This record gives sequence, C-alpha cells and structure tokens, in this order.
Amino acid sequence: MSLPTNEPVLLRQDDGKVAILTLNRPKAMNALSGELIDALQAEFDKLAKDDSISVVLLQAAGRGFCAGHDLREVRSTEEYRFFDDLVGRCSRMMLAIRALPQPVIAKVQGIATAAGCQLVGACDLAIASSEAKFGTPGVNIGLFCGTPSVALARNMASKHALDMLFTGDTIDAQTALSYGLISRVSTPDALDRDALQLAQLIASKSPLVLRMGKQLYHKHSEMNLEQAYSYASPVMAGGMMAEDAQNGIDAVINKQKQPEWRGK
Amino acid sequence: MSLPTNEPVLLRQDDGKVAILTLNRPKAMNALSGELIDALQAEFDKLAKDDSISVVLLQAAGRGFCAGHDLREVRSTEEYRFFDDLVGRCSRMMLAIRALPQPVIAKVQGIATAAGCQLVGACDLAIASSEAKFGTPGVNIGLFCGTPSVALARNMASKHALDMLFTGDTIDAQTALSYGLISRVSTPDALDRDALQLAQLIASKSPLVLRMGKQLYHKHSEMNLEQAYSYASPVMAGGMMAEDAQNGIDAVINKQKQPEWRGK
Amino acid sequence: MSLPTNEPVLLRQDDGKVAILTLNRPKAMNALSGELIDALQAEFDKLAKDDSISVVLLQAAGRGFCAGHDLREVRSTEEYRFFDDLVGRCSRMMLAIRALPQPVIAKVQGIATAAGCQLVGACDLAIASSEAKFGTPGVNIGLFCGTPSVALARNMASKHALDMLFTGDTIDAQTALSYGLISRVSTPDALDRDALQLAQLIASKSPLVLRMGKQLYHKHSEMNLEQAYSYASPVMAGGMMAEDAQNGIDAVINKQKQPEWRGK
Repeated sequence: MSLPTNEPVLLRQDDGKVAILTLNRPKAMNALSGELIDALQAEFDKLAKDDSISVVLLQAAGRGFCAGHDLREVRSTEEYRFFDDLVGRCSRMMLAIRALPQPVIAKVQGIATAAGCQLVGACDLAIASSEAKFGTPGVNIGLFCGTPSVALARNMASKHALDMLFTGDTIDAQTALSYGLISRVSTPDALDRDALQLAQLIASKSPLVLRMGKQLYHKHSEMNLEQAYSYASPVMAGGMMAEDAQNGIDAVINKQKQPEWRGK
Repeated sequence: MSLPTNEPVLLRQDDGKVAILTLNRPKAMNALSGELIDALQAEFDKLAKDDSISVVLLQAAGRGFCAGHDLREVRSTEEYRFFDDLVGRCSRMMLAIRALPQPVIAKVQGIATAAGCQLVGACDLAIASSEAKFGTPGVNIGLFCGTPSVALARNMASKHALDMLFTGDTIDAQTALSYGLISRVSTPDALDRDALQLAQLIASKSPLVLRMGKQLYHKHSEMNLEQAYSYASPVMAGGMMAEDAQNGIDAVINKQKQPEWRGK
Repeated sequence: MSLPTNEPVLLRQDDGKVAILTLNRPKAMNALSGELIDALQAEFDKLAKDDSISVVLLQAAGRGFCAGHDLREVRSTEEYRFFDDLVGRCSRMMLAIRALPQPVIAKVQGIATAAGCQLVGACDLAIASSEAKFGTPGVNIGLFCGTPSVALARNMASKHALDMLFTGDTIDAQTALSYGLISRVSTPDALDRDALQLAQLIASKSPLVLRMGKQLYHKHSEMNLEQAYSYASPVMAGGMMAEDAQNGIDAVINKQKQPEWRGK
C-alpha cells in the first residue's frame, strides 16, 4: 500500500503471441497486495480463454521483482477471515499459473522474496539476471514462508529449500540455477532481450503442442511411473495424429522449412 | 527405415557378467523403429531370467546415441491404432528397464534426442562423453515429447525439464550431469574404457545384492517416507541374514579379501 | 563394539537454545550400535518435549562422522529377529529426526557412510567440511544399503543415488552439495564456527515459527500441489495472526529492531 496513484498495479502488453504482464508497484517492490493478486488472477482467467496467446512472460517494474505479501496490508487487520481470504486468493492465483494452458516464464530482474520467490517457483520457466537474488526471509519477521515453501519444495532439493526457509538467507542467480529454481541466467544488460527471445522462441512452436505438453507434464508428474506412462502414451499417440505433427515430420523428411502451425 | 540390410538392429555381446546391448541402426541415428523396440523388449525379457548376467550396458553404434522414434515409420500411416500400439510398446520397453533385475547403464557417446533422451532417463545409471548432447526437440516438428517428458520429470528439476521440452534446445553433458540426467562424464577417448570399467565394477558385486537393491530402490521411491521405511527395514534386515553379507562382513572384521559371492 | 569404556556413546551439551549432540564412539568411527541408536532415540524423545531448545546440532567425535551399523554387532548373531529389531529401531530413530519439532542440522567433519550417510540425509540441514566424504559402500561387503537408500532417494536425483548405491564409491563435499545431500560446505578449520553460527542463527528465530515451519514443510512435501496449497494456506493465514508475526511486521514497518519472540 504505497501512496495511491492512478497507475494500474498490473500492466499487460502483447508482443505477437507473447502476453507480457508487468507487476507495477515498483515503489512497494511489487508486493502482492490483494489488488495485485486479483489483477493477476483476472488476467490469467482471460488468458486461459485466449487462443491468440501462446506464452506468458511475467516481469516486474523497478529494481525488485516481488517482495511477497504487502506487509502494511497484512497489518491492517487482526481478523483471521481476512488472512485466510488473502492467502487463499494468493494460492489460487499460484495454482492458476500451473492450470493456464500457456507456458508462463518468470523474468527476474531483481530480488524475489517470500511470496515473490514463490511466484518464480510457480511459473513453468524462469530466467533471471545474474544480479537477481532469491529468498524466503519470513523467519526474520516471525512469519514462516509457509505457502512459498510449497513452491520451493517442488523446485529444489529438500536441504536447499529448508536452508533458505530456516535461515532467511538469500541465494544468488547461479545458485538458484543449480538448485532448479530457475533455468537460465543472463547478464543484467541482456536480460530483456534474452527473456523476450526465449518467450518468442517458445511462441514460435505449435500452440496446440504447447498446451497439450504443459497439461500433460504437470499431470503425469504427480503420478507414479506406471500410471504416468499409461496416461502419457495415448496422449503421445494422439499427438502423432495431429496435423501439425504430420506436417512437421514431413518437413523434416523432405528437408523443407517447418510449416505454419495450424493446431490451436 | 533406412535401406534394408542384413544387419540386426540390436546386437548383444557379453563380457563376463556384463551384457552389452548395441543399438545398431547407425545410419538412422539408431532411431527406435518398432523393430528395434521389439528387439530391446525381447532382449530384456531374456535377461530378466538370466542369472549369469549382473549388469546391462546399453550403447549405440555410430555417431549418435539415439534419435527417438523413427519419423519415416511414424509417417507411414495415419491410423491411431498404429500410433497407440507403437508408443505403447515403447513405453512398455522403458518400464521393462526399470523392472529388469539387473542395473542398466546407458553409455551415451553422441546425441540422444526425444525417445532417445527418454531411453537415457529410463536407465538406472548413465555415463556420457563430454561431447554428447541431450534434447527433446519434438516441439520443433509439431510433436511434444510427451512420453520422453515422463522420464525427464523423474530425472531432473521441473524448470530444467520444461525448458528442454518447450524450447527444444539441447544441453551438453556437464549440464546433464548437474541436472541429474546422467551420473558420470568421460572424455570421448576414455568413454569406452570408463563405461566398461563402471559396468564391471558393479558386476563384481553380489548379484543378489544388485537385484534386491534395484527392486527395493524403485519400489520405496514411490512411497512416502514412513511407508518407505516400513517397507525397506525388513528387507534390510533380511539382507543382513544373507550368506554374502555374513561372509562380506567377516572379511572386513578379519581384514581379509572379500569372498566370492554366492547369492543369486 | 570397541573396547568397553565408561564414556557415554552420546554426549549432549547445550549452547543457549541449541542442543549439541555428539556421537561419541570415535574409535569405532561412531558406528550406530544398538546402544547409540537407543541413546539418540532417547535424546530425541526428550527434545521433542523441550520448549527451551530451538535447534539440534548433530556432530561427531574424532575423524569420521559415522560409519553406519556396527559390523561386529551385526555379526554377533544370525537371528532374523535381532536384525529386524536393530534395523527397525534405526529406522524409527531416523523418522524421529523428521518428527522432531526442532530443525536438526548435521555437522559432518569426516566420512559418513552407509547408515551414517543416511543419518546426514535424515537431518533437515547439513553442513560439511570440504574434506568430508559420503558413501553407501554396502555393496562392497555383500549388503545393499537398503534403508540408507530411502534417505538418498529423498535428497538427490535418482541416477546420482543409484551410482553411489551400486558402485559403493564415495563423493566429496562439493559433489554432495550439488546433489542436494548437504546445503553448506566449510573449510575444515571453519566448520566448528560456521556450524555453530548456522545453528545459532536459526535458534534466533521464533521457536513457534521453526516448529510450525518444519512440520508444515514435511507434511505438504508428500502431497500433490493442490492438496499442498489447501493444507498450507490456512496454516499460513494462522501464522499471520500470531503475535510474533504481528510484532515482527510492525518492527519492519516502523524500522525498528526485531522484537523478542514470545511464541513457543
């Protein structure tokens, strides 16, 4: 709750098939106020039905990526119902990222802490500046990063996650890469370009393939190996039937340029 | 479907207790044709009953390790039943590697892509040349690497896997080592020697211990921690009863050479 | 079973809110005799009810950290009931570490093998000397490290774990860090200081937060993502209600020093 302005807390700008969402509370280090959580949820709800968008790039204005919950808002009440509602909306928004048909890429230019670090973990991919930092410092203020720990546990080894959660120490981008929290590191100067290139590279693939792939991956990841193969095998066979695959394979066999994708 | 030859698509040669299987379609980058899938399945079925073999080393002829499904074969029909059958046989073969009593080591001398990358993931261990590459480039031809993604998700962090799956980019051997897809890297010159030494090292252990260990590991890995300990504890206690363990421990206590293993 | 002495096999010394447990069978490389297992269990049972302790630091006397089961004790009988009882007590002790309300940090100054490596894996955090080594060499003596493999599988990628389990080879501290088995490495000279600093840093946090956080983390880690958020969200909301959080957040907002924590 920085000073009220007329600026919307979330910006959206499309670049071809890439929707670029920008957390826009730079003075509050893009803290996830209830308003910003709702704005993200609303945008994800819209994107879920938008066939013209293939990839979502989630970035942030200013020096920091996201500082987690808005502490002034948290201290504006002592009612459990308020906290339960706020955290519930935040968790639903994190789950919406996974449920979204399009891959979501976090572009982390600065520090990502607490629910901001969780937001990075909740995305499908993440690319960060070599100067970005990541942390879950709730322990420093008497509040364990409980919901962020859900995302951490699903991105990295247990000891790496618990070290962050119990000490509150931040890690740098190279460490985050080796832990599994992000998959690419750029220099601060190259980040804008590299992130957009990554998003456009993925957006150049068949939209049908991206949607099918993302859904399949997250679904089989929560199954045991036999169940996963039982589930994935007919989906894969169906993928081979698709027009995009048949045209794409023909292009390889005939040493031609890949076709325009038609599947939605 | 390269030109028909009289060469079998899969070779087997035993070196003591190590069965060496060689993917032998070098001109087709050892693509997993239905014929090669069936040949692998048949060999695994035989090995499952063969007490004289302790370790399986899976290698490939030519420059590439394995290019995944045979694209010409995939385009030879448009019938769903054909694709469903082909992918189903491939998934059963991947599961047979895990179900095999013997540890299976992939020796990756060149590029492993799509179902070829999945094959590496499906093995228990993998050693690669520093010049090997790994990728799941199905997105580039309109076909998400769905069944390969089952193996990726069980070998590496989610963001590392999804980056490979959505971009189609390849990773090098050092990256594959840090992600968890392989456990050893050799120079191209040393790979043959190092892989065989690794296989022979493991084959020098008690066959009973290898079988019991592999089965136990994969079984408890899909349980929660309490269930895993409930399941593993009596198996461990039984292991202490085994003649090989008793002789092996006596040798340590008496500072003698380890005995010949008797357990099968 | 080294020569009997009057020395207790487990020492405890408290440093403020940190309980320091020392495996004290240095001549036997701190092997987990039944007596030592029971001493650890008894200490954990006591600690579980002790609100004055916030963190447990588990260290070892002498050059080695822990050599696993005591081989002479294992060879003192051939009765299954004995082995079943011994392994069962050991597994219960490992589970007691996870169930303990306080975070447990392993401080690994030397080699940790078999159930000693499992003990590192069973702790919440681990800091090691750069000269420490880790291994599961049971295969070398005819005894697969079955219960240790339960801990390995939950700390590192499958191929990394199976390479250790099937070859019996040890890994160094840097490798253990990259695999996820430990979260910090110190020089041999700095280990004592760094481990105690780490323990004291964590012990400086709200005891309530540490307890709630540890329990939450291990519980949601065994759920799927939706269940994990359903479970964690109300716990997080409850955390925001806590006096420690409210005082801690007020201190941030008012740029004051963090308060004394009151929650237990």
